[in-house]
Parts: sequence; structure tokens; C-alpha cells
Amino acid sequence: MKVLIIGGVAGGATTAARLRRLDESAEIRIYERGAYISYANCGLPYYIGGTIAERDRLFVQTPESFTELLNVDVKVKHDVISINRDRKTLSVRNLDTDEVFEDPYDKLVLSPGAEPLRPGIPGIDSDKIFTLRNVPDTDHIKTFVDANKPRRAVIIGAGFIGLEMAENLHQLGIFVTIVEAAEQVMNILDYEMAAEVHQHLKVKGVEFYLKDGVSSFTDKGDSVHIALQSSRVIEADLVILSIGVKPDVKLAVESGLEIGTTGGIKIDSHLMTNDKDIYALGDATEYPNPITGDPLRVPLAGPANKQGRMVADNIIMGNKRSYRGTIATGIAKVFDLTVASTGLSEKQLLRMDREYQRLIIHATSHAGYYPDADPMTIKIIFNKERQLLGAQIVGYSGVDKRIDLFAVILGHAGTIDDLQEIEHAYAPPFSSAKDPVNIAGFVAENILNGSSHHLHWNEMNDIPREERILIDVRTEDEYGIETLDGAVNIPLPQIRNRIAEIPKDKKVILFCGVGKRAYMAERILRQNGLEDVYNLSGGMKTYSLSTQ
Amino acid sequence: MKVLIIGGVAGGATTAARLRRLDESAEIRIYERGAYISYANCGLPYYIGGTIAERDRLFVQTPESFTELLNVDVKVKHDVISINRDRKTLSVRNLDTDEVFEDPYDKLVLSPGAEPLRPGIPGIDSDKIFTLRNVPDTDHIKTFVDANKPRRAVIIGAGFIGLEMAENLHQLGIFVTIVEAAEQVMNILDYEMAAEVHQHLKVKGVEFYLKDGVSSFTDKGDSVHIALQSSRVIEADLVILSIGVKPDVKLAVESGLEIGTTGGIKIDSHLMTNDKDIYALGDATEYPNPITGDPLRVPLAGPANKQGRMVADNIIMGNKRSYRGTIATGIAKVFDLTVASTGLSEKQLLRMDREYQRLIIHATSHAGYYPDADPMTIKIIFNKERQLLGAQIVGYSGVDKRIDLFAVILGHAGTIDDLQEIEHAYAPPFSSAKDPVNIAGFVAENILNGSSHHLHWNEMNDIPREERILIDVRTEDEYGIETLDGAVNIPLPQIRNRIAEIPKDKKVILFCGVGKRAYMAERILRQNGLEDVYNLSGGMKTYSLSTQ
Ligand SMILES: Cc1cc2nc3c(=O)[nH]c(=O)nc-3n(C[C@H](O)[C@H](O)[C@H](O)COP(=O)(O)OP(=O)(O)OC[C@H]3O[C@@H](n4cnc5c(N)ncnc54)[C@H](O)[C@@H]3O)c2cc1C
Ligand SMILES: Cc1cc2nc3c(=O)[nH]c(=O)nc-3n(C[C@H](O)[C@H](O)[C@H](O)COP(=O)(O)OP(=O)(O)OC[C@H]3O[C@@H](n4cnc5c(N)ncnc54)[C@H](O)[C@@H]3O)c2cc1C
Ligand SMILES: CC(C)(COP(=O)(O)OP(=O)(O)OC[C@H]1O[C@@H](n2cnc3c(N)ncnc32)[C@H](O)[C@@H]1OP(=O)(O)O)[C@@H](O)C(=O)NCCC(=O)NCCS
Ligand SMILES: CC(C)(COP(=O)(O)OP(=O)(O)OC[C@H]1O[C@@H](n2cnc3c(N)ncnc32)[C@H](O)[C@@H]1OP(=O)(O)O)[C@@H](O)C(=O)NCCC(=O)NCCS
Repeated sequence: MKVLIIGGVAGGATTAARLRRLDESAEIRIYERGAYISYANCGLPYYIGGTIAERDRLFVQTPESFTELLNVDVKVKHDVISINRDRKTLSVRNLDTDEVFEDPYDKLVLSPGAEPLRPGIPGIDSDKIFTLRNVPDTDHIKTFVDANKPRRAVIIGAGFIGLEMAENLHQLGIFVTIVEAAEQVMNILDYEMAAEVHQHLKVKGVEFYLKDGVSSFTDKGDSVHIALQSSRVIEADLVILSIGVKPDVKLAVESGLEIGTTGGIKIDSHLMTNDKDIYALGDATEYPNPITGDPLRVPLAGPANKQGRMVADNIIMGNKRSYRGTIATGIAKVFDLTVASTGLSEKQLLRMDREYQRLIIHATSHAGYYPDADPMTIKIIFNKERQLLGAQIVGYSGVDKRIDLFAVILGHAGTIDDLQEIEHAYAPPFSSAKDPVNIAGFVAENILNGSSHHLHWNEMNDIPREERILIDVRTEDEYGIETLDGAVNIPLPQIRNRIAEIPKDKKVILFCGVGKRAYMAERILRQNGLEDVYNLSGGMKTYSLSTQ
Repeated sequence: MKVLIIGGVAGGATTAARLRRLDESAEIRIYERGAYISYANCGLPYYIGGTIAERDRLFVQTPESFTELLNVDVKVKHDVISINRDRKTLSVRNLDTDEVFEDPYDKLVLSPGAEPLRPGIPGIDSDKIFTLRNVPDTDHIKTFVDANKPRRAVIIGAGFIGLEMAENLHQLGIFVTIVEAAEQVMNILDYEMAAEVHQHLKVKGVEFYLKDGVSSFTDKGDSVHIALQSSRVIEADLVILSIGVKPDVKLAVESGLEIGTTGGIKIDSHLMTNDKDIYALGDATEYPNPITGDPLRVPLAGPANKQGRMVADNIIMGNKRSYRGTIATGIAKVFDLTVASTGLSEKQLLRMDREYQRLIIHATSHAGYYPDADPMTIKIIFNKERQLLGAQIVGYSGVDKRIDLFAVILGHAGTIDDLQEIEHAYAPPFSSAKDPVNIAGFVAENILNGSSHHLHWNEMNDIPREERILIDVRTEDEYGIETLDGAVNIPLPQIRNRIAEIPKDKKVILFCGVGKRAYMAERILRQNGLEDVYNLSGGMKTYSLSTQ
């Protein structure tokens, strides 16, 4: 058995390693266009920022160690230029010698990844504009930074990588400005969750322009002038372009492999392309999302690594393994914040025109009475059939734990009842007796069984002012300091005795800081004959941040 | 509807709160023997140690706030002295006035908890010997410590509470000695996992005597002499007795409620006792463990809190909710370590004489190339049908996250395949592309499909020395510094070329630091015709710690 692999990083290297462990006698060769294999793509921003101090740390394996340990033949600086499916060969160019040769395979694995988008904006070829995909890109940026000591950087595109770069350049003392075409950073989040990130960026002194795009770049001496569509002009010494990636499907297209609707290589549940001798995985591929059934491309390392092991298993053991599909669980550190999501966002569901319910709670990473509990905001999305559809969390410590719990439930097509029943490990330094994931399940159930009606920050203005009454159920002191425009104050402990004050012909919108006391108030009113009662989801905290 | 509740802390207070939210008109009364309700039992050790600085922080609610917010009548210092099931009343003694009265109920909820064991050891009534269950106990200990400035404390019993107290007293500058009858601390762990805790206690300067019990206590002036069964005598200024709890079932027994085989109040899936008007929950109850079907008592706050909500729902909505049972997920901070477990231990399975497989891996809390990754040791237990049966973790950061993931899979009767497929959130500060839980699943699969055979630290001596060869596959340098007794060195990169050196008539035991390189070596040997090959599970690290 001879297996050729195109691409020597996350998907390709993992496939090769597992192949060898399964079969000592297979002939395994990796072709990698670049000079490096098996490096930590995900660590690149942190090396630039200095958090990862040594460049060597980025290399999990080298071509030499791969050969030594795994007896895998690694050809770096070799560009595969065509897949000749009829002959079952690859045409390969040795980039050192420019020699082109053919190499036959029994099975072929495609893990060519995705490349940063670089749209044809005037001036984009400036040598001060960088994208970040691999080690040479990283070296370029690092060298530029060391040599030119830029004072101002502009990041175009505020996804994971853009924000990681923002943090890392900021850490080097560079003033950072972000330009993002959408109305928010971190597009996988819904707006009100992203609003917390906006707030944090402000606190950190990072400037950002939303709903704005670049119309041109112009080099002016040592700096570049970035003209925005809003006609604002920003100056920068360094520009990072991080507006997304496109799957590297050139070889696949040219050799007639099937491409799916999202532009990725189409694979079946065995991670096989439409050619039974060719498997594909990683950033270049698409696969049905298990929640919607629609094809999805998820350019993340976790799926690529797991798929790599499966591809190897299927090659050696004969398509025994089926892929469940990814639900797009992602996370990023954004300065002190942790931002994470899994499954579908509200935005996606709106686009799909599907029915959904949603809620926002604010919780703490562990018991409030134990020191250093951090706040976190959780949004979950679910449907009337009780199925969980997605979750988003913004906070500090403990966010990663909760998003993983949501991901497991989602991955099993689980329900809000499963959330309630999660038997988490509790001691004061780690959680509360009811974990935030449990609470999210409780609140969802209360919504579905009609015990509680949530009104969302962006629904408030749908209700004419004269048809609603806003009641702040916090204490008089809290109300005195700050409240929502037009709100009256009835502190929770008084509400049983002051029901008569509440007009029966208006929509009653109850709120508190985060939504918990308002829920308690709602229960009292609802059982006292008031029906048109709402709890402002996520309380004043979410409302204020989102409407700023 | 009139509901009486016995016990006003975790289970009782939660039931009352949810009852009120479901039914504004119900009459709800809590009887609590003590002076406090709704306090953070789990925080008590940390208040003694000073981590929780203010006593007020321990009270989540007070009788007054409970009445004010929830319109629940709270009778503290009221001891329920009998349940009169025929008349559906309670007899209650007001501990302030000594008056006894009867109070009728429609539904009764029992959440009386469990009390610390205090065996009849000679001298146990010394006023320097304390147990810790509630706020008065805490006040006693704190007052004693403040007044007497003890220099030496002895903790009898090294479960969660014992170790938490060890840490907290140590933090006050007190020299701590632990006495434990078992051969290990933290009985929910298996020995080799507890060995890491032993190591940590040594590093922290905590003294401990295992496999030893107290035969007598003797007051000698300001100190107490503790005579052990080994005839060792230890002196202490303060003794904490933390050898376990027993369910408080006196009322239940006297009123003829059914008691189960573990001594807890027997409840059905609706958390109902054998009296349809009486529900019971929390530490005083037992319920079948969903993994084994055997009755189990789990004195933990998470289950008590979740059960409280269910009991209320079942009372108001008519037994709509079924309890799945608890799998005993627990966690403790022990100095810098985090120690956690869920499901069954190997010890338990041995006792039950059930078939199982097991493995130990060492992993890191996040990608090794990102700073500050902490080590963690994971043991999982599973069976041939691929079902996960239990998991244990000892480490630092990130332990709580992984134990929760194992708990969710366990709670769904999940398999080692589910572990492999967990789609966790990955970025370098939070995890690795393959999370340790995924790796545990991979390794389990390799064991089940025969790709890898694990030999455990306690199986080594079962193989006569002359029948085995121990091969250290680490580098020459590593081998030079320290290796296992009798081991030869064949570094992993050389093993393909040195197979001829390995005797075919002996059991080949491969090891490395943690088990990963040895697995790679095992795959090479196994495919080169050697069959009697083993990977020392958890590598030198686990072996050395466990056999010290
Ligand atoms: C800066 C950065 C940060 C990231 N952070 C995270 C993170 O925190 N978490 C996360 O989950 N993911 C992260 N990712 C994404 C993650 O790195 C990718 O999802 C993953 O590497 C995809 O694996 P792959 O094998 O599909 O592609 P890659 O790892 O990109 O490997 C593809 C390789 O194929 C080679 N190749 C392509 N075509 C040819 C050809 N014709 N001939 C020879 N070689 C070829 C390429 O040179 C490339 O080296 C990050 C990515 C970047 C760039
Ligand atoms: C020091 C300590 C640390 C702990 N740490 C943790 C931890 O980290 N994590 C965790 O999960 N769990 C922990 N626990 C356990 C947790 O506190 C219990 O599991 C939980 O409180 C059980 O709830 P319950 O309602 O069953 O009993 P309790 O909370 O103990 O409440 C029972 C109440 O009933 C009252 N009562 C009993 N009989 C009568 C009667 N006849 N009349 C009137 N009142 C009566 C008692 O006075 C008592 O206040 C800890 C416990 C202690 C003591
Ligand atoms: C380095 C690389 C080649 C690793 O491939 P790999 O050997 O499959 O992966 P790991 O090092 O995680 O090792 C996993 C293997 O060791 C085994 N293993 C791990 N710990 C073990 C232990 N303690 N005992 C026994 N086996 C163990 C696992 O079972 C698995 O083997 P299997 O797949 O045969 O079951 C590949 O992941 C890579 O190139 N990574 C860098 C690129 C990348 O992923 N970038 C994106 C993220 S930054
Ligand atoms: C304090 C105590 C009475 C709390 O009872 P509780 O009100 O049921 O519990 P919580 O404060 O966690 O609140 C949970 C309720 O608020 C709701 N809630 C929480 N956050 C919310 C939010 N942001 N928006 C809307 N609702 C919210 C939940 O849905 C739940 O209501 P439900 O049960 O009707 O669905 C009880 O847990 C107690 O006494 N605890 C201390 C004792 C103890 O547990 N000791 C052991 C651990 S140390």
C-alpha cells in the first residue's frame, strides 16, 4: 500500500502519523509546498506577540523527526501541481530544483488547507500589508516589526485571527485599529454578545471601526494610508489582512473532484471524495452540519486533527469510521476575555428562517462566596422540541469549560433537559451547586413551559412606549444610581404588596441587573393574574451594552 | 396546598424556593433545627482558613430574606421530633421555649442531611476534638483557633472535607498531620491516583499516617495525645474528625419510612418515599446508581440542589419529573492540586467482581507550546462493550473541565467512542487540537481493538523477572538520569533497527515517561511479529509514584 498525502500540517501530518501506527509496511509520503511541516498554526499570533518566546516551540515535529520516528518520507518545498486520477499519480514540482516528476499512489489524501483572502483592493500589494497563515508569513511580520518598530497597526477583519493579532500587536506596544465590515467583531457571535467584546476593546484602548470597509491602500513613505468606504482615512505602519480564508481546492477542481456548495471539497461520511481512492479533510473540505444537514466548512484545527485519524483508519481498515460532522465549536482569547461559541447562532437561524427560542443569562465561574469568581454571559438557542441549537459565552475563567459542555450536549442532539441534568463536579473554587449550564437549562424550560416570557434587547423598541410599563425590580439604591429610560421602581421584596399599582392594560416589562430577580417578580405577577408580563433577557447588563 | 419541609439548607431551601415560584398560594414552612438556613456548607473550611474573609458571605439567604422574598415561613431552632403519618402532622419542638406542637401537612419534604460520624473511641469527648458540619461547628473551630493559637492539628480521615481542612489549617500556619485508616487518602480515587496526592502533601509539608487508626484520645493539659493502632502517639492542640457522615434517618425510621440497603431513605424515581405524601432528598437518601443499578448515597450539594427543584416540580405538577440518579461526580482542591472523579473506581469494580479495562494517561491542560500548561493525570475505566464506567483526574488547571466532560458522557451511558468525538473548543490557551478527553478515548480504543496492551503498575510484580524484559524507549540522556530497575534502553528512533536485540521468548514491557512513546514503540514491535508486548500504563511517572 502506498499512500501520498498533500499538505504536511494539521490534517496531513496527523493522517501520516496514524497511518504509520496502523501499518508499519505502508509506503507513506507527504508533499508539502512550504519549508515546514507539523507546526502550530494556532500559536503563530502568540509568537509574534512574544507570549511564545522561542520560535522552535512552534514546531511539533520536523521533517527529520517525522522520518526518524515514523519512517514517513517527507518532501518539503514540493508543490503538487496536478492529480492525475486516470493514472493514479501526482505531478510534483521540486521547488528547489524546479524539476517536475510523477509519483503513483494507491490512496491519496488531500489536506491542502485554506488560504487567507486577499481581495483586489487598490494598493493591496504594499509591502506593509500582511496576511498570516504559516511560518514564513509569521517570520515576515516578526522581522518587519523588529526592524521597523511600527507604532500604529491596522487589522482588517475582526474574526478570531484578527482579534488575536490585535491583542498580540497591542502587547508589543503598538496602537491597534480594527476595521470590520460587519456591524460587530467576531461574526460567529450574535450582536449583543459581541457588544461585550466591543466594550472590552474600548477598555483596552483598541480603536475599531465597524460597518466600514477598505476602499484603497496608499503607501506614503514609511506608512500606508487606508481609505475606508466611509471616506475616513487611517494611517498605519503595518496592516494585517484577516478577512477570512478560502479553501485551497485548485488541485481538486482541476482533477474533477466534486466541489460542494460552500466551495469546499465534498466528502462523504468516510471522508472520501467522489474518487474512492482519494480522501480529503481539514480546511479545504465541507461536510453536512449535523444540526442543520446543510454543508459547512469549518477551518479549525480540532476537526482537522480528528479527521486525520479517521482517514488513516478508513484507508487501512476499509471505511469503518463515520464522521458525525462538526458543529463548529470555537474559542478565542481576546485580551482578558474568553469568547466562545458552538452550534448555530441566532443570525444563522434567522437566515435559515427557522423557528427558535433564545435566552441570555449572566452567571459566575464559581460560587460567589469564594474569592475571584469571574462573570460570564451565556446565550443559548433552542427550539420548541427542546433541542439545543447553539450556545455562546463571553467571560473570563471557566468559559472554555462551559462551552465544551454545551458542545457535548449539542453533539448528541441533546435537549435543554440534558443541560439541567449535567452532573458537574462542584466545590466552591470550581463551580456552583447549580452550574451555569444547569441554570441555562432551567431558564430554557421556564420559557418553553410558559412560566417565563423573555423580551430581548432588540425587541424593546417594537413596543410603543405608551403600551408598555418598564419596572425595575432592583433596590431603591440601585435604581437611584442608574436605570433604564422611563422605568419605575418596585423592589422585588415589595412587589407582592404593590401589584395594584401595575396597570393591567399594558405590557409589563420587568428587569433587574441580569434577569434573575425579574424572573422572581415575573412569577409573582403571572400568578396574580397579570399575563402580559416579560423578563428583559440578560437584564440591564445586556440591554445597556447592546444599545450603547 | 400546605407543604412542610424538614431541613433548611441545600435540599430544603432549594425546594422551598422553587415551590414558591411554582405556586404563589401554597403554604410553605421550613423547620430547621439549627439557627441558620441556606448557608454554604461547602464554604465552611475556607472561612476557617481565611480564604473566605467575611462570615456573612456564608449565608446565601437568611430566614428574614427568605420570608421577604419568597413568602416562606421559616422556623429556625425548631426540631421536628416525629412524623405522624397517620394524622399527616409533624410534632415539633421549639428549641427556644421547649414547647412542642403539632403541625399538619398536605405534602412533606425531608431534607435532613447527614451528620459526621463520631465513633465511641475512648477520649473522643475532649473539647479539642471537632467535627464540621454547620455554622456553629465552624464558629467553634474558628473561636478555638483564634483563642488558642494551636501549633499542631491532627485530621482524622482524609476524604474531601479532611483534606480541605488540612489545607485551610496549614494556611493558618498550623502544622498538620493526617491519620487515615485506608492505605491512601481520598478514597474515591484508586491508589495510583491518590499517590499523586500523597506526593503533593509531602511537598507541602503535611505529615500523614496511612493504614492507621486511632485507638484513644487523652487530654494532657492544652494538648491531646492521640494513640494510634500502630502504637504511635501523636500530640495535637486541635483534632478534626472527618471520617465520613451518616444519613440523618431517625425521623424516617421512627415513622416507618422505608430505609434502603445503604442506610439512606429509599426514594423512587419521583423522589418519593414509600409514603405518597412524603418526598425525600439530599444526603439522607439513597437512589440506584445509573451505571450499576445498585443503591448509592452521594452526600454532595449538586445532587441535593437539583433534586430540590425536582421535588418541588413533582409536588406541584404531579410527579412529572424522573430522577436519573447520580454518578457521584466530585472534586476538591487540595492545596495546589485539583482532584476529581466521576462514576466507578477500579476499587469499586473489583468489589463488584465486574469485568473492566483501565488506562492512565498524562496530558497537559493546554497546548504545550503556549506558556503555563499544567500537567494532569487521567485514569479512565471502561468495559469491553466500550461503555465508559468511570474517570479520575489529578492535576492543576483544567481538571474541572475534563471531569465534567467525562461526567456528561457517563451520564448518557456513553462510550469511549463518544470521548473520541467530543468537539471541544480549541485555541492554544485552552486546550490542544486533540483534548486529553479525546486522547483518553483513542487510547481506550487501541486497547479494545488489541493495538495496544497496557500493563499496570501493580501487575509488574506478577511477572517473574526472568520472564520479562523491561525496555526504556526514552533517550539515552533520560535513561542515564533515572530509569526503572533492570531496564535496558532502546530509544524509540532506534527501535526499528534493533528489533533483533529483543528476545522473542519474554514478555516485553515497554515504557517511557508517560506512555506515549512506549505506545509508538509497541506498534512497531507488534507489527514486526512480537506479540507478548506491553505498554506500562502511565509510564514511569505513574509507576514510580505508586511504588514509592
Ligand atoms: C494564525 C492562525 C491561527 C489559528 N488558530 C486556530 C485556533 O486557535 N484554533 C483552531 O482550531 N484553529 C486555528 N487555526 C486554524 C487551523 O490552523 C487550521 O484549521 C488547520 O491547520 C487546518 O488543517 P489543514 O491540514 O486542513 O490545513 P493546514 O494546516 O493549513 O495545512 C495545509 C498544508 O498543505 C500545503 N499545501 C496546500 N496545497 C499544496 C500543494 N498543492 N502541494 C503541496 N502542499 C500543499 C500547504 O502549504 C499547507 O502547509 C488557525 C490558523 C491560523 C492561520
Ligand atoms: C464542610 C463541608 C464541606 C462540603 N463541601 C462540599 C463540596 O465542596 N461539594 C459538594 O458537592 N458538597 C459538599 N458538602 C456536602 C453538602 O453540603 C451536602 O451534600 C448538602 O448540604 C446536602 O444537603 P441536604 O439538604 O441533604 O442536607 P443539609 O444541607 O445538611 O441540610 C440538612 C438540614 O436539616 C436539618 N435537620 C435535620 N433533621 C432535622 C429535624 N429533625 N428537624 C429540623 N431540622 C432538621 C439540619 O439541622 C440541617 O441544617 C460539604 C459538606 C460539608 C459539611
Ligand atoms: C504532531 C502531529 C504529527 C501529531 O500526530 P499524532 O502522533 O497523531 O498526535 P499526538 O502527538 O497527539 O499523539 C496521539 C497518539 O498518541 C497516543 N497517545 C497519546 N498519549 C498517550 C499515552 N499517554 N499513552 C498511550 N498513547 C498515547 C494516542 O492514542 C494517539 O495514537 P493513535 O492515534 O494511534 O490512537 C500532528 O498532530 C501535527 O502535525 N500537529 C501540528 C499541526 C497542527 O495540528 N496544527 C493545528 C493546531 S496548532
Ligand atoms: C439559596 C437557595 C435557596 C437558592 O434557591 P434557588 O432560588 O432555587 O436557586 P438559585 O439562586 O440558584 O436560583 C435559581 C433560580 O433562578 C433562575 N435564574 C437564575 N439565573 C437566572 C437569570 N439570569 N435569568 C432568569 N432566571 C434565572 C433559575 O431558573 C432558577 O429558577 P427555577 O428553579 O424556578 O427555574 C438554595 O440553593 C440554598 O439554600 N443554597 C445554599 C445551601 C447550599 O446549597 N449548600 C450547599 C452548597 S455550598
